[in-house]
Amino acid sequence: MFENTEKTELSQLGEFGLIDHLTQHIKLHQPDSTTKGVGDDAAVLDFSGKKTLVSNDLLLEGIHFDLAYTPLRHLGYKSIQVNLSDIYAMNGTATQVTVALGLSSKFPLEAIEELYSGMLLACDKYKIDLVGGDTTTSKQGLVISVTSIGYADEQDICYRDGANEGDLLCVSGDLGAAYVGLQLLEREKLVYLENPNIQPDLEGKDYIIERQLKPEARKDIVELLKASGIKPTSMIDVSDGLASEILHLCKQSDKGCSLYEEKIPIDQMTYDTARDFGLDPTVCALSGGEDYELLFTIKQSDFEQLRNQPDISVIGHITEKSAGKNLISKSGNVHELKAQGWNAFKA
Amino acid sequence: MFENTEKTELSQLGEFGLIDHLTQHIKLHQPDSTTKGVGDDAAVLDFSGKKTLVSNDLLLEGIHFDLAYTPLRHLGYKSIQVNLSDIYAMNGTATQVTVALGLSSKFPLEAIEELYSGMLLACDKYKIDLVGGDTTTSKQGLVISVTSIGYADEQDICYRDGANEGDLLCVSGDLGAAYVGLQLLEREKLVYLENPNIQPDLEGKDYIIERQLKPEARKDIVELLKASGIKPTSMIDVSDGLASEILHLCKQSDKGCSLYEEKIPIDQMTYDTARDFGLDPTVCALSGGEDYELLFTIKQSDFEQLRNQPDISVIGHITEKSAGKNLISKSGNVHELKAQGWNAFKA
Repeated sequence: MFENTEKTELSQLGEFGLIDHLTQHIKLHQPDSTTKGVGDDAAVLDFSGKKTLVSNDLLLEGIHFDLAYTPLRHLGYKSIQVNLSDIYAMNGTATQVTVALGLSSKFPLEAIEELYSGMLLACDKYKIDLVGGDTTTSKQGLVISVTSIGYADEQDICYRDGANEGDLLCVSGDLGAAYVGLQLLEREKLVYLENPNIQPDLEGKDYIIERQLKPEARKDIVELLKASGIKPTSMIDVSDGLASEILHLCKQSDKGCSLYEEKIPIDQMTYDTARDFGLDPTVCALSGGEDYELLFTIKQSDFEQLRNQPDISVIGHITEKSAGKNLISKSGNVHELKAQGWNAFKA
Repeated sequence: MFENTEKTELSQLGEFGLIDHLTQHIKLHQPDSTTKGVGDDAAVLDFSGKKTLVSNDLLLEGIHFDLAYTPLRHLGYKSIQVNLSDIYAMNGTATQVTVALGLSSKFPLEAIEELYSGMLLACDKYKIDLVGGDTTTSKQGLVISVTSIGYADEQDICYRDGANEGDLLCVSGDLGAAYVGLQLLEREKLVYLENPNIQPDLEGKDYIIERQLKPEARKDIVELLKASGIKPTSMIDVSDGLASEILHLCKQSDKGCSLYEEKIPIDQMTYDTARDFGLDPTVCALSGGEDYELLFTIKQSDFEQLRNQPDISVIGHITEKSAGKNLISKSGNVHELKAQGWNAFKA
């Protein structure tokens, strides 16, 4: 599982030794808001004049990741990104994270260093301070809990409940790639389990593999919207699949919607690979999840500002509640939009 | 495991149904700082003019708790308390928590309701808002991650590194009870496993059992210190055992200490029960852990203010670093203070 040949058992360091070892390379990027980082009972932060944003997520081995095909460095990177995504989805600036790890004895120090280096890489790239956490032993495989913290001016915050009739429904990037990438990885894992001598066949599939293993939270979209003078009327990140997220916005805003299948952005490689698997690319986008794109609504009057942004697609519009939540297919048929597929408790 | 006879499988509700169900009874207590609680991508908090404090902890089944003798309501209560304790240890006011749960299919809804009701009881009692979190399935038993958030005026914050030579070393409450309570529970579990017809013999041991199963974070001590006009020069909470925590204060303050065995506060029931188990009560206090008392240092000039506080004990004083970290036994012998015992990676 670990390419690194050196193996140091965690028991040689002890909990505090491990914490000292892992945290020695932490650099701080947020001098204005990080008053005190790791090393005390709690981190001390300063958001004077701003609202504080807090979100946390749990990632569990065997549920959220499979170490058979997930490099630990990528896993560390992804575990930070999926949490930052929640802060950006509030139209905020992410500034700090805390990281709690549950580690089983199967992990030598070098494995944890890999995981941690991925986390710190994400922190460096996004100018995030890792300011605290917890490290404990686990009988149950790897447990990762990340809390992300950020800030926003009160008037800039985008909630889920602000969509209005006539608003345009927009999404960043493209959808379904992370799910199709996962299908590829699962297939190659099965091939490998049957015959360990066969090398994985992922040739030319870099983009969708990377979308699954190493997603990027869309900080750039938040900055683009700000630079364009646009405040979305509602926003959410796409973690569970487009359909589920649209339904959240509609439910909390007490509105309906029209979503146009032909407008849903799907990358060509995603499309072709889905077809190879006998999957409907639209279903992959609607229900696949883990895209970590931003879904948001804007006033029609803001459309001109975004017209020439290739990384933002207008995929539909908000309607009155009584019109229902509708998916208009490429052939023009109207279907009720449903959050099928993913259910965390039916896995 | 669950006395409640009704069993509702989590898959009947789905993730969002479960979240709606659990969060419907959340009451908010902090209108000044909780702008937006559960229901969006992140909680929105307002600490204008104050420093924000953040801490998080991970509690894992089989490591931090054993469901054979831990009622889920108590576990929920404790999981909040151990996190609030970190905020109080900064001399801060705890105001919010987020809770991420990993649930295996062995838990019916009614079990999760029990767990959650204990969490909300702790929140109600300590005026804490539960403002967000995550709920996911787990293949690995129950996983609980709590992030606690609070605030403090900058000049009130107590770090671990402020102890000065001559400062008095103080601790709240009494020590070792949680550890001795755990020994009792472990013994009765073994008896039960050998013969399920034998009822547990915990008669008259309520105090130490409660110290293990249902600890209380010492918010009252923070308030008492404030009312007495005292700001500790350093502070930490006693989660890993007195010795380990004293060594943290000494290390981060770059000082030594003299700790007097005879001054360590140990409850009579703790003392007697430890003896029944053939354990040294002092070792239970030094290395047992999970007391969640506050350990702090004060200037000698502040002593008069605390002289008549029965719930605070002066157990030693801070010395120059070169004098070492010393434990003076009841017989007057001087030993080097060591953090023996607990090591999360040697379990």
